[in-house]
Amino acid sequence: MGEFDFIARYFRPLAGKGSFELRNDGAVLSPPAGEELVISSDTMVENLHFLPDDPADTVAKKLLRCNLSDLAAMGARPAAYMLNVSVPSRSHYGEAWFALFSKGLAEDQKRYRLSLLGGDTTGSTGPLVLSLTIFGYAPIGQALRRDTAQLGDEIWVTGTLGDAVLGLYARKGKLEDSTGALVEAYRLPTPRTGLKLHGIVNAALDISDGLLQDCGHIARESGVAVELEAASIPFSRPVKAHFPQWQEECFIGGDDYELLITCSPTQSLALKKQCDQAHIPLTRIGHVVEGVGVNMRDENGHLMQFPRTGWQHF
Amino acid sequence: MGEFDFIARYFRPLAGKGSFELRNDGAVLSPPAGEELVISSDTMVENLHFLPDDPADTVAKKLLRCNLSDLAAMGARPAAYMLNVSVPSRSHYGEAWFALFSKGLAEDQKRYRLSLLGGDTTGSTGPLVLSLTIFGYAPIGQALRRDTAQLGDEIWVTGTLGDAVLGLYARKGKLEDSTGALVEAYRLPTPRTGLKLHGIVNAALDISDGLLQDCGHIARESGVAVELEAASIPFSRPVKAHFPQWQEECFIGGDDYELLITCSPTQSLALKKQCDQAHIPLTRIGHVVEGVGVNMRDENGHLMQFPRTGWQHF
Repeated sequence: MGEFDFIARYFRPLAGKGSFELRNDGAVLSPPAGEELVISSDTMVENLHFLPDDPADTVAKKLLRCNLSDLAAMGARPAAYMLNVSVPSRSHYGEAWFALFSKGLAEDQKRYRLSLLGGDTTGSTGPLVLSLTIFGYAPIGQALRRDTAQLGDEIWVTGTLGDAVLGLYARKGKLEDSTGALVEAYRLPTPRTGLKLHGIVNAALDISDGLLQDCGHIARESGVAVELEAASIPFSRPVKAHFPQWQEECFIGGDDYELLITCSPTQSLALKKQCDQAHIPLTRIGHVVEGVGVNMRDENGHLMQFPRTGWQHF
Repeated sequence: MGEFDFIARYFRPLAGKGSFELRNDGAVLSPPAGEELVISSDTMVENLHFLPDDPADTVAKKLLRCNLSDLAAMGARPAAYMLNVSVPSRSHYGEAWFALFSKGLAEDQKRYRLSLLGGDTTGSTGPLVLSLTIFGYAPIGQALRRDTAQLGDEIWVTGTLGDAVLGLYARKGKLEDSTGALVEAYRLPTPRTGLKLHGIVNAALDISDGLLQDCGHIARESGVAVELEAASIPFSRPVKAHFPQWQEECFIGGDDYELLITCSPTQSLALKKQCDQAHIPLTRIGHVVEGVGVNMRDENGHLMQFPRTGWQHF
């Protein structure tokens, strides 16, 4: 099958408004009146972000959901995406794999209400490389940021942490995952889209590089310090089953795709209400103080030490 | 150097309006009143789209210019871009390489008036993979397309063809390029931005997959046939020096990044004027007729045959 047949078969059915059915040099997009475009992009590389034998539909969904999580962190609702794929020749990434990949995208497009705009398909002499650039809409000037945390803010997190990183270790055979819940969390993050956070929160990001490192991003960019209480941090039952041995990994490991939010104590009820309505668990894990960096304290108030703070690609 | 220092050093200086200095989960962008966003994306893979020893600044510029060429084909003016890089570890793609890569982007940002919005940086277990998604603005509903060629249209092309594909063969040692002009054309295409083609042309695309194949795109998407006169097709002196041996490659080879335009004979003077003002050479090479596919005739009016029609990635 040639490149053009490949695009026609697996990507054209995903194409939506403004895409010219992928028949053009590019696509068009217009934000509604009063809104602006919010744009984010994530690349996933075989063996680094997914494993060659991960199911193709979950690889597709993870790619889309990582990006949806970025939109959620900026308070934007999903609209469309561009997809770039570099496909190794003589690999198992053939027609069956891409049929399932396309099916995964189709399911999540429906679930999160967005469509494919365009992209590029090339060969690769190495791993499968997938880049997705996502577009959402937010009220002009209202996109949430990570550099606007305020002194006295409470720090909140959605969902639970550590499931995905322990899922990766389970995939690599380093720990037991009898229910499969951890591997599932690694393969299929749940982006926290749909919350209306404008006017409620002061700063937000999604935890992709690990709790400690992403708290560090908020602290550095906002010119404040972050104090975390280890005992408050929410973990699922399958994660806690591996404590204390794996607890540190859960503070450091990435791929959570939960929202980290800072918000004035006067707004915490409004925040809680938003999350309750969306059935999204929300936990207060710390607060914003003067200073620099991130401190985590154990239940006795002692500062905890970590040998590293999170994921960097190189 | 870690990922965050890497981004700060080589990409933050390129970041412009709406990018939050690359400190956020994403970026924001708003088209001016009356205009919409035009979006295109191209991926370049080491050894497929550029060679490991190509200078880093020309790799950067080629990546940007391929995308700028897509905007030109849609009649959009450049605004901004997202950049995704997957960098192999233990390779020569280190600090010196990326310093030069960043310098190339900076020069072309100034030349073509656009800035970096955001992107993603990852490792790679294989080749260097570069994806760029470009954003431009065009009057709402006026973006040029390839499926709107009309019967009776003349077919025009900017610049000359074949320089880049012969440059690639020269790089591979298969032919002589005594002046270096062919390799230069392969490394540094000239996107035909800045033309005001709205209301003048009926269809347009940029020739990236080769003249024959891209004419085929216009024919198929517009439901017409394209007749080309081989003797009219413009070639540079360094290209013609390799005729007749390499002539066929020049009809088939890709990477030209010249505009292929169809326009009513009543608009050809207006088109010519636009190109003259921008000092862009323009040549009429054929016309649009009823039927299907692409025919090329030699100077005696005989149909020419080609064993293949152009570049597909797989």
